[in-house]
Amino acid sequence: MNAKLYLLPNLLDPSSPKEMHFPSYLEQIIGGLDGLIAESPKSAYAYLKLFTFPPGKSFRDLPLWILNEHTTDKEIREFGEKELIKGIWGLISDAGLPCLADPGAKMVRVAKEKEVEVKAISGPSSIILSLMLSGLPSQKFSFHGYLEKEASLLKKQIHTLELAALKEKITQIFIETPYRNQKLFEMLLNTLSEKTFLCVAWDLTAQTEEVRTLRISEWKKTPLPSLDKKPAVFLFAT
Amino acid sequence: MNAKLYLLPNLLDPSSPKEMHFPSYLEQIIGGLDGLIAESPKSAYAYLKLFTFPPGKSFRDLPLWILNEHTTDKEIREFGEKELIKGIWGLISDAGLPCLADPGAKMVRVAKEKEVEVKAISGPSSIILSLMLSGLPSQKFSFHGYLEKEASLLKKQIHTLELAALKEKITQIFIETPYRNQKLFEMLLNTLSEKTFLCVAWDLTAQTEEVRTLRISEWKKTPLPSLDKKPAVFLFAT
Repeated sequence: MNAKLYLLPNLLDPSSPKEMHFPSYLEQIIGGLDGLIAESPKSAYAYLKLFTFPPGKSFRDLPLWILNEHTTDKEIREFGEKELIKGIWGLISDAGLPCLADPGAKMVRVAKEKEVEVKAISGPSSIILSLMLSGLPSQKFSFHGYLEKEASLLKKQIHTLELAALKEKITQIFIETPYRNQKLFEMLLNTLSEKTFLCVAWDLTAQTEEVRTLRISEWKKTPLPSLDKKPAVFLFAT
Repeated sequence: MNAKLYLLPNLLDPSSPKEMHFPSYLEQIIGGLDGLIAESPKSAYAYLKLFTFPPGKSFRDLPLWILNEHTTDKEIREFGEKELIKGIWGLISDAGLPCLADPGAKMVRVAKEKEVEVKAISGPSSIILSLMLSGLPSQKFSFHGYLEKEASLLKKQIHTLELAALKEKITQIFIETPYRNQKLFEMLLNTLSEKTFLCVAWDLTAQTEEVRTLRISEWKKTPLPSLDKKPAVFLFAT
């Protein structure tokens, strides 16, 4: 049997129907897996319960392997050498696509070294959905993950990113942990130039999804939305 | 009736079954469209033929509007003011997701100004698939579209991008028109440092899909694949 590693999409909003976001073929892939790599058992089971298993097979039978920020490179390598080469594994992230700003890329590296075939299945990515829905230029874009935490460093970084956006016509994209969103939002409004377009996209794919793009001068004239505890993506362009 | 603009995914490889790449819900959206915005009538019809229409409705009945690099901002604005506000429109690109490195973003801007609801449906993106499959770090990444054409400018740009990749731990992503792939590939091999990881991803989602990641020193020791006329994405990281 040929070993395979499938990079599988997860939902962004757990209450959203999977038919709106996943290719129907995914059901077949899940039914044929020998194991699932996930960030936690809880998220693995929540994911597997989305699918119907072939008769005689249950999501409880599927071996799990946990890969998150606490997993060491040595553990990933050992798993790759002992388990990954022996069957068909799926890899998911807690939300959206794996191997984007999560430790999945290391597993892909080991799979490629061990000549395990790697396949990716398309699905929702908050980075890409927010960029598409923002209306901002997309000939060039940069994803920065999380920005600096400390206020003076953050201010400096926003200035640097704005200068690059202006000079190279790049749309800058970044995220923040939900409980710090409001703080970052205010810092952006106080730091960026009046003419810069700032887009905030929150609750993507949920019923409450919103994507607002305004110049800083316009944001300052409108009541600000509350982003507290909402998953959000920030984007700006000049 | 509420006007709507759907940003719809297209296939990367036209011979690949849509069940592997599109959410099944897409069929329903297509059946409810009042019109389709596409880069050419040919690509619009090829796309619509992928779907089954409700009884009494045919893909031939659907009004088309052509949006490509020749469309002026004035034409987009007029279409937005006269047609977009009156119904449910879909927008596609010739391949993959719209509004990524194509003129679709301008239509989204007009839709947002006119308070037309904009929704994006997930699907295959060669940028994101190549990044996931590359095994390269993805905490930070930059998409640059096409690089410089002229050799000396290109060389300089590759150096600049490599320096940024090293300094800021960014994975750099870019594309080339298929008939120039081989030239860019050779320039990358001759310009990047021996230790830099270069990934080339071609024919994504096709039977012939390949994604190879090697250090420059390793690429130089192996027979190079022919990328001529194949759609390819290039990525590097240090």
